[in-house]
Amino acid sequence: MEFRVIQNCRQTRARIGEINTGHGRFTTPVFMPVGTQASVKAVSSEDLKAAGVEIVLANTYHLYLRPGQGVIARLGGLHGFMNWHRPVLTDSGGFQVYSLSKLRTITEEGVTFQSHLDGSTHFIGPKEAIGIQEALGADIIMAFDECPPYSADYQYLLDSVKLTTRWARRCLEAKTREDQALFGIVQGGVYEDLRKRSAEDLVELDFSGYALGGLSVGEDRETRLDIVSQTRERLPLDRPVYLMGVGSPEDLLEAVLLGVDMFDCVMPTRNARNGTLFTSRGRLTIKNARFVDDGRPIEENCGCYTCSHYSRAYLRHLFMAKEILAYRLNTIHNLYYYTHLMAEIRRAIEEGSIEEYRKRFYALQGTGGNALSLHPGSREKGPL
Amino acid sequence: MEFRVIQNCRQTRARIGEINTGHGRFTTPVFMPVGTQASVKAVSSEDLKAAGVEIVLANTYHLYLRPGQGVIARLGGLHGFMNWHRPVLTDSGGFQVYSLSKLRTITEEGVTFQSHLDGSTHFIGPKEAIGIQEALGADIIMAFDECPPYSADYQYLLDSVKLTTRWARRCLEAKTREDQALFGIVQGGVYEDLRKRSAEDLVELDFSGYALGGLSVGEDRETRLDIVSQTRERLPLDRPVYLMGVGSPEDLLEAVLLGVDMFDCVMPTRNARNGTLFTSRGRLTIKNARFVDDGRPIEENCGCYTCSHYSRAYLRHLFMAKEILAYRLNTIHNLYYYTHLMAEIRRAIEEGSIEEYRKRFYALQGTGGNALSLHPGSREKGPL
Repeated sequence: MEFRVIQNCRQTRARIGEINTGHGRFTTPVFMPVGTQASVKAVSSEDLKAAGVEIVLANTYHLYLRPGQGVIARLGGLHGFMNWHRPVLTDSGGFQVYSLSKLRTITEEGVTFQSHLDGSTHFIGPKEAIGIQEALGADIIMAFDECPPYSADYQYLLDSVKLTTRWARRCLEAKTREDQALFGIVQGGVYEDLRKRSAEDLVELDFSGYALGGLSVGEDRETRLDIVSQTRERLPLDRPVYLMGVGSPEDLLEAVLLGVDMFDCVMPTRNARNGTLFTSRGRLTIKNARFVDDGRPIEENCGCYTCSHYSRAYLRHLFMAKEILAYRLNTIHNLYYYTHLMAEIRRAIEEGSIEEYRKRFYALQGTGGNALSLHPGSREKGPL
Repeated sequence: MEFRVIQNCRQTRARIGEINTGHGRFTTPVFMPVGTQASVKAVSSEDLKAAGVEIVLANTYHLYLRPGQGVIARLGGLHGFMNWHRPVLTDSGGFQVYSLSKLRTITEEGVTFQSHLDGSTHFIGPKEAIGIQEALGADIIMAFDECPPYSADYQYLLDSVKLTTRWARRCLEAKTREDQALFGIVQGGVYEDLRKRSAEDLVELDFSGYALGGLSVGEDRETRLDIVSQTRERLPLDRPVYLMGVGSPEDLLEAVLLGVDMFDCVMPTRNARNGTLFTSRGRLTIKNARFVDDGRPIEENCGCYTCSHYSRAYLRHLFMAKEILAYRLNTIHNLYYYTHLMAEIRRAIEEGSIEEYRKRFYALQGTGGNALSLHPGSREKGPL
């Protein structure tokens, strides 16, 4: 993997970068849709391409349990298995081991846990996480980290950061494939000194990129952006920085301004399946009765497949009737919104107008979508 | 609507026909996928076109209840609403009123029933059924019939046939749109004389086409084909004949040989969602463990989108993991199988080789799919 900064923003810490992988290049800042089980829920790889998606994330924990990394390796790795021949990133399984499985025991070697599918007992440590990810064959893989709960106290977090650093070293030692880039994951909760320590430890180990983990787990938005800002300053400018599991369009924009290059989140896909659609004027709840015979697309001038072919009325009908097509059409729109939001942000950085873009972004929020009909004629303030 | 017979089979009563509608033409014999709620479950109109689908069916009963024919009319009728600009056929709601709703009361004027969605009370008679279908705007619409249960006795069926004839006349009188063709529906259960009477009554009323209703409801296959054969002989050769709700690939082939021109059935789409896939060598249950790392497509040389891009192993994984994409990819394959089966049948009729085609069809059944792995090396007999 190669990363190079193409252009630095004149107004903020944002930058345009390019990442080259064995499966092609993509431009940063980039949003990665989540394909937990080797499928971005409700859409095909063709749909992803049409929506402008350049890289997808898959979850090591889920794929290890089902169908197993051996199956995927025999079928050409994730790229062949999913019929997705663009870049892929896998997480390490760390976060899911803590958030989904039961009866965990953590030792110096790794974590013993019970499968959320059938209760069977498994063990994953840094060495195993790298082995699984090498079999899955993503272009970018992640170090195995401990993900403490938001409620963890300072002492626990300190020990956890130390353990995560030791595991990070083991991941580097275990890695054998030259065609995969390994990123380290900065932990430390909401404590600036722990984040600093974690970042410095990992930078010393020299990863191809650095992720910020353990955020969007309960902290407020201001705290989250503070942590991002402080941590970003400890990380080298010649490596990509990836904010894991974040987030809303607003979060993405703010984090880009702080120098973050990569994002993943289930928000666009999960919201789509719940009938919440993103537009430049705010969120739109498709089941709302006022859309019953609204012949307009979700968003005027949106270039996505859904907006080009289907009305809000039809999408509302599909959603109310629980038709499977609803989930796909909604997902296509939300992914297009996210990829095009990132494209707009990149263009604004290039043009040196990101602050103006940001003002316009918030001014537009709440002037359409759900807000419009609730308060016709009013112009609500954005979410910040 | 115009119908013309292009070629009669030299070996059987099968024929090639062409139907012209305001939304384009299609060739018969034709299979119509079922889009109950203005959506063929799990696929888009683009998917349908790519699978070779030329006409779809939508259900009047469901669309009357939700979203209501007024909504659909305001959004350009079914064609505009669904973004499907090829021919559409709607049923009359008769069958669903009997099979889905509760607390029915039948009078000379029509049927009072309770919605299966919310228990609300509704009334549909012949006049209402035509009014709803005119608002929905399909190219071919159906007369409102009574659909007695399979258990009904002779006397009930005789009265029912008489009522269906009176309703058929009222449908013709109620019809106002010149751009829609109206088909009558022959009833009469499994009694040859009642089917004869129903057919003769309707032919006297002069419909644009004739359907066979009340089949595939419990009778055995031989009886069903006997009824089709006997009834077909009572119907004019210059009108299309439509066998409603039938059926399996074997049923389609046999009914075409008896002179049937049109079919609809949920079998390809419902089976797809249950993981049963059709191939020329038999049915394949995708969840079967032997597909776990089978890198081949569902069927070698199948030209469908699914077989062109995805392996059995991936489809099995998606199905086991309950990924929404599984339903779409399986449905695309099964619809392609059905449309291409009909295309093969048409070609064999054209070439005067339908009997040879039929022999080959049954010889191949059971040589692949599930049968192959259960009895490797064996060559099972086809389902007949």
